[in-house]
Amino acid sequence: MTVDEESKEFLTLLAHRGFLWGPSPEIYNPLAGAFDYGPVGKQLKNKLETTLRRIFSMHEFAEVQCPLIGPERVWEASGHLERFFDHVVECSNEKCKNTYRIDHLLAETGIPEEDYINVKPEDYLAFIKKHEITCPSCGSAFDNVIELKLMITSELGFPKKPYVLRPETATTTYLLFPRLYTFFRRDMPIRVFQMGQAFRNELSPRNLLIRCREFEQCEGQIFITKDMEQKFEAFYQVKHYKLRLWPAGHQEEKDTTVLDISLEEAHEKGILDNPAYTWLLHLGFKIAENLGFPRDTLRLRQHQSHEKAHYANDAWDLEYHSKIFGWTEICGIHDRGNYDLSRHQEFSNKKMKIPIPGSKERVIPEILEIAFGVGRMFLFILEESFMKDGERTILDFPVHLMPTPFAVFPLQRKPPALVQKARKIYNTILNENIDVTYQQRGSIGKRYRRTEEIGIRYALTVDHQTLEDDTLTIRESITMDQKRIKVDQVLDILRGILMGDLDFSTIEEVK
Amino acid sequence: MTVDEESKEFLTLLAHRGFLWGPSPEIYNPLAGAFDYGPVGKQLKNKLETTLRRIFSMHEFAEVQCPLIGPERVWEASGHLERFFDHVVECSNEKCKNTYRIDHLLAETGIPEEDYINVKPEDYLAFIKKHEITCPSCGSAFDNVIELKLMITSELGFPKKPYVLRPETATTTYLLFPRLYTFFRRDMPIRVFQMGQAFRNELSPRNLLIRCREFEQCEGQIFITKDMEQKFEAFYQVKHYKLRLWPAGHQEEKDTTVLDISLEEAHEKGILDNPAYTWLLHLGFKIAENLGFPRDTLRLRQHQSHEKAHYANDAWDLEYHSKIFGWTEICGIHDRGNYDLSRHQEFSNKKMKIPIPGSKERVIPEILEIAFGVGRMFLFILEESFMKDGERTILDFPVHLMPTPFAVFPLQRKPPALVQKARKIYNTILNENIDVTYQQRGSIGKRYRRTEEIGIRYALTVDHQTLEDDTLTIRESITMDQKRIKVDQVLDILRGILMGDLDFSTIEEVK
Repeated sequence: MTVDEESKEFLTLLAHRGFLWGPSPEIYNPLAGAFDYGPVGKQLKNKLETTLRRIFSMHEFAEVQCPLIGPERVWEASGHLERFFDHVVECSNEKCKNTYRIDHLLAETGIPEEDYINVKPEDYLAFIKKHEITCPSCGSAFDNVIELKLMITSELGFPKKPYVLRPETATTTYLLFPRLYTFFRRDMPIRVFQMGQAFRNELSPRNLLIRCREFEQCEGQIFITKDMEQKFEAFYQVKHYKLRLWPAGHQEEKDTTVLDISLEEAHEKGILDNPAYTWLLHLGFKIAENLGFPRDTLRLRQHQSHEKAHYANDAWDLEYHSKIFGWTEICGIHDRGNYDLSRHQEFSNKKMKIPIPGSKERVIPEILEIAFGVGRMFLFILEESFMKDGERTILDFPVHLMPTPFAVFPLQRKPPALVQKARKIYNTILNENIDVTYQQRGSIGKRYRRTEEIGIRYALTVDHQTLEDDTLTIRESITMDQKRIKVDQVLDILRGILMGDLDFSTIEEVK
Repeated sequence: MTVDEESKEFLTLLAHRGFLWGPSPEIYNPLAGAFDYGPVGKQLKNKLETTLRRIFSMHEFAEVQCPLIGPERVWEASGHLERFFDHVVECSNEKCKNTYRIDHLLAETGIPEEDYINVKPEDYLAFIKKHEITCPSCGSAFDNVIELKLMITSELGFPKKPYVLRPETATTTYLLFPRLYTFFRRDMPIRVFQMGQAFRNELSPRNLLIRCREFEQCEGQIFITKDMEQKFEAFYQVKHYKLRLWPAGHQEEKDTTVLDISLEEAHEKGILDNPAYTWLLHLGFKIAENLGFPRDTLRLRQHQSHEKAHYANDAWDLEYHSKIFGWTEICGIHDRGNYDLSRHQEFSNKKMKIPIPGSKERVIPEILEIAFGVGRMFLFILEESFMKDGERTILDFPVHLMPTPFAVFPLQRKPPALVQKARKIYNTILNENIDVTYQQRGSIGKRYRRTEEIGIRYALTVDHQTLEDDTLTIRESITMDQKRIKVDQVLDILRGILMGDLDFSTIEEVK
């Protein structure tokens, strides 16, 4: 079986097993770029969110939640309203009228990026004509350049006022700075994160959850002063942790080498000169490892100067190597300087300056940002967990991400005592708040297959021997190995597995 | 201290202690109807959501997540686009131009509801004139009736197509019916729930989280046939559970008696003739009790015929008696019949009919809905937990809703061994995934006050004796009682409290 066939099978499984449906709404004529999470997908997404929440909390980030819709003025201040659009060309053929993002169109022509990266919007049509680029769909010339706003706008209230659906969570978190500064009793640096929806009017949403019109982010923010960035204690505690870095310089020289070096070394070599920011890169990498992505599928790629956002001093993308979609950003880590709070001070007339201890100076804090795409991570956790064993399909999740780790089956539906016993064990597990499913329909073999395909790692089967000696079998999906354990040890074993203290090989069998 | 002063103090505490900030964005000129959850508020909201998730799962509802934005066509089918608006009058005085929802304006005049409930929109101005109702703000006459659409609309894609921000989660769940029917292998009834944002362009948002433009819902749906409604097994398992009912008949006769009767009795008396729907009323009441609302602050009020939504066969609101806002709906439970799936079959041309087992008939399933307002419950959990003890303010949450149940303090910041010991105990608790905070700044008394005010029930204080005999004090906020316990028993005691097996009175002290 080739990778391509396997990938096709993977994509079919997503819908078939209740992970992801869409584009939404499927029963109507959907517009690409929005999806439904089915019952199993939503369980996985909840586990992912819980994991992110736990890691951010452990690193002393407090969570907040802000509205999705806000006045236009906020996005004037953030710079998004002015700068957040794509340039699009439209085909001149009345019957075709297809549209293309100019950067995508030029990238596909084979013209080197250096040649077009600095072309100005007003010169796009001339550049396209000079290189004889025509509509890929009908071959006609292009005659119209359109500025496509990425912000999705609306109106609220009476009389109506312009409102905007947020294109990122970050800015909404920044607006809380005066409140946060008081809440944390002026104890800088302040760490906060937010998880939630954002919206962009993409011309051509594609690749499932990778480029959507409605998507979810999990964005952490550190409010900090320049002074504190250099004395960031947490950096020194993890200075030996190794990152995989692909600096901008390497990229410009077409050098694909990824540096596998410690925070300390990257700092000494001048690749990363800001300890607080370097620590944040480490956090991104560590979270990805914690979600089960192998090191060699990950790299931190520095933005080259032409791709940096308008607010970024430095920017690195944490990328994952997807077999289907290639290297794809799953997290962006940005040194935003004091751009954001300066702009909000200017536009709102609210003071954002804070005193520097031991000095008479007041400064506007800097912001360091770590921005995860939740949907992308969801998709890639699924891709990474997908495995084939002959005809069998298994989703092999890390324990803390399994939508449901355990299943309880009666071997058969008769005698009734078998079903009663299995039900009782199931209820005992459920009452301990452990995620478990119960199934009695179909042959035991079919139930094994069906549960493996949604990432249930352990099946507990109640059989005739259970009724005699109060033992049952525990089966591990990947190896198909089975062990006999005592019913009264089930809860301890399941808890041991969830805590990471036990795995299948260390479960003791009844003699 | 009167209730009013206490309420004022409660409302101040919300912002002061990081529960709720807004209207959002505070630093700009906000439009009412959207709020920010601060760090403590977000923790509480997470606990509330976890509790709702757990209860719905235990009752075999699977969770899904659908987009917030969708094509206009969906909301044509649902009937919202046609029927979802308020009638508003505008003052004729050019300097005033104030606007009022007509139903609110008339309700405040003292004219009995019966007199105006059936007035048609085109007759509103004449009715207002006849009763000499003028602008409450400037006294001028009204001369303009406006239809204010409650749906918030936008445009997406290129060329642009009309899009709508969903005014409820329910309809987006219904669109998944064909997928769900296959996913659950045609095993009806099917139970699903969804938690997430919804949006309405309210003319006058008010009362904090009670009437917002952006709000969150948690809505459960049962897809069922008429036949199955009558044979709904779960009803018989809880038939002795008592509800507090205020039927429409009583309301019409101005009889304020609330019936405290069992499901079985309500069914026998013909107050509720649909067992499945009656079970859903029970679920709503049970969830509210589980969230800590006392029985006598709750009632189920049946909708009178004129207030029923366009899709409702029967409708009851679960109401909470707020000291500040009076009786307020926290949950609506609706028998929607087969209205929704019929409309979506008509508008999408997708078959929604399913076969009835043992019959040749095919039917469109009915839908029973239970719709909680998450923000309202959040607010009322806070109101219910607020208590004064002299000058002290305490938030007294049920254990499973406490944003953070535990705190660890060193008694003083010196000697360093005290701080080290406290830190070590804190880390041990944290590593067990138990929500705990650590504080060393300020006097111990101040730290007690500050933590009581955000609902931290138990403070663990490390003092000089700890360094000698490895014991520490555990203090309970409400009683201010303290007990000495062994450091190596801390984890067991904390777990016991969280599981509900222990409370302060049953903690054994060291001899």
